[in-house]
Amino acid sequence: MDFKLKNDTFLRALLRQPTTYTPLWMMRQAGRYLPEYRETRKQAGSFLGLCKNPDYATEVTLQPLERFPLDAAILFSDILTVPDAMGLGLYFSDGEGPKFERPLRDESSIKALRVPDIDKDLRYVTDAVTQIRKALDGSVPLIGFSGSPFTLSCYMVEGGGSEDYAKVKTLMYNEPKLMHHILEISTQAVINYLNAQIEAGAQAVMIFDSWGGVLSHAAFHEFSLPYTQRIVEGLIKEKDGVKIPNIVFTKGGGIWIDSIANIGCDAVGLDWTMDIGIARQKVGHKVALQGNMDPVVLFASPNAIEVEVEKILSSYGFGSGHVFNLGHGISQHTNPDHAAALVKAVHELSKKYH
Amino acid sequence: MDFKLKNDTFLRALLRQPTTYTPLWMMRQAGRYLPEYRETRKQAGSFLGLCKNPDYATEVTLQPLERFPLDAAILFSDILTVPDAMGLGLYFSDGEGPKFERPLRDESSIKALRVPDIDKDLRYVTDAVTQIRKALDGSVPLIGFSGSPFTLSCYMVEGGGSEDYAKVKTLMYNEPKLMHHILEISTQAVINYLNAQIEAGAQAVMIFDSWGGVLSHAAFHEFSLPYTQRIVEGLIKEKDGVKIPNIVFTKGGGIWIDSIANIGCDAVGLDWTMDIGIARQKVGHKVALQGNMDPVVLFASPNAIEVEVEKILSSYGFGSGHVFNLGHGISQHTNPDHAAALVKAVHELSKKYH
Repeated sequence: MDFKLKNDTFLRALLRQPTTYTPLWMMRQAGRYLPEYRETRKQAGSFLGLCKNPDYATEVTLQPLERFPLDAAILFSDILTVPDAMGLGLYFSDGEGPKFERPLRDESSIKALRVPDIDKDLRYVTDAVTQIRKALDGSVPLIGFSGSPFTLSCYMVEGGGSEDYAKVKTLMYNEPKLMHHILEISTQAVINYLNAQIEAGAQAVMIFDSWGGVLSHAAFHEFSLPYTQRIVEGLIKEKDGVKIPNIVFTKGGGIWIDSIANIGCDAVGLDWTMDIGIARQKVGHKVALQGNMDPVVLFASPNAIEVEVEKILSSYGFGSGHVFNLGHGISQHTNPDHAAALVKAVHELSKKYH
Repeated sequence: MDFKLKNDTFLRALLRQPTTYTPLWMMRQAGRYLPEYRETRKQAGSFLGLCKNPDYATEVTLQPLERFPLDAAILFSDILTVPDAMGLGLYFSDGEGPKFERPLRDESSIKALRVPDIDKDLRYVTDAVTQIRKALDGSVPLIGFSGSPFTLSCYMVEGGGSEDYAKVKTLMYNEPKLMHHILEISTQAVINYLNAQIEAGAQAVMIFDSWGGVLSHAAFHEFSLPYTQRIVEGLIKEKDGVKIPNIVFTKGGGIWIDSIANIGCDAVGLDWTMDIGIARQKVGHKVALQGNMDPVVLFASPNAIEVEVEKILSSYGFGSGHVFNLGHGISQHTNPDHAAALVKAVHELSKKYH
């Protein structure tokens, strides 16, 4: 695959190279807010049915790109494919989100954890990457992704989502060695998983530390960030002479942006709570920034959306290094026309900053 | 009431005057984790039954102080008494948290909002303050409190708790003037409410901006902080020659600590995500700090609790200006013996820092 990308604005922004406008994509851009997604999901029978079938995964990955001139595609998958491949038994109960049949609840199950065989157990993901990359035909870059070890561990110990993360934090405070063991195995798994996605065709990768923000400062710097750093260090950085940038996103991580920007990543994702101009001052030339509009802004009128887009663009200011995005996944209740208004506003209003 | 307090460590710490140890109390210290609280609640019939009856409110306010040598009492009440007094009809449905019968859903209901008559509609709160203050008999100071205008508005517009605050944020982005109107009325109500608590005997007051942290930087500085500042400016600062310190707590507000510390408050409450030593460097001598242990630490062993207490005390370092607290309300699932271990650890381990 040595063809040139027709639109490499996203990759250039991640590497802080000049661009003529600010590129954007939206977290969870292939999702339930799109009627065509809901249609395909109905055919597939379930969310996991979409993830595990490369044809369906390709179809839904491309859907938002057919509607909107987005600057990147992101692999349609779920962060919990990794613990599923580790044997925890992922399932989705209607309206309740992800669950595990065999969560980690005792020392023996933790000690028995093994790094999964990506070629065997996660082949459906790398097959999807290859197929999506081919279907994109060089239009825009494809992003691969994984959960961070801490975020995966949250789900693995809690057995699903949680309000207070009491089980995983109690383990962490009472049995730090066992917690570190889960994180060690998960780290190796994530490195292998992301590198396999890169080998299969992912042109950038993103690590989602969706739950790192529930930790104390001390716990985040002991149980989350060092493992994310080891992943960044273990990633393939270049393929066929082309750089593969990586993005680290910690929801609620704004207060720790100094340390996150220091782990060697190319870009830091921001939720909407931190001002992106302040973030840029803090990280200087170390990393690019991705974000950071509150997804709820898309519930407001197209005029109000434009106002908020301009606030973020002007706060970031002149020059490259900004990938526009939402600060969290787009809500299923979003009107697709409002997503279109966002894309238009970012593309048009950003030109004057380049 | 001109008797001297037997233990004024809490008030001295808020005013950054020397103390011999670090004082502490726990948010939601009178609550469901205590069997005696559950017993009284059963007698009262409901949570609101406790709040609205000064005898019960006094009884449960004092319960944690009978168990643990805490350095402050906090009025037993709810932040939603104010919108209830504004006519929104507060009720609690089992296991679902607070709800309003008449949430603010249109312009006419917003325009019809009135500042409540504290003497008439919230008399049960000021009566409770007077009675609790008398029952405390000068043992420790009594804290009064209120929700911040933004946090109250969230509940008033959403009609209850929310996962994404879509209704209140949509109003805010689409109809900022209507949102500011709700905030204006709420601000005046909160000033009157807190000053009435001070007149009735509260010796310190705390403003809970429990949901300010869900906003973007720009929205927080437009829709939350300026109103909190106006409350701080409008508060009675001294009574009978004694200072009445105030505390502003924004959950998730660590990234905005510079601006929060600048609104003229005496102390800033911190959740557990920001390192308290870094926070102290940022605020300098402007304010005292209250916090900041993750309440989930109390699920761990007493030994692990001690380790976390020492981390926070040593991060804050030498000298006064620190009130130890949890970064959020104590969980109903906490073992009271672990709360006792916390109190003991803070009192003993903090001596060397004073």
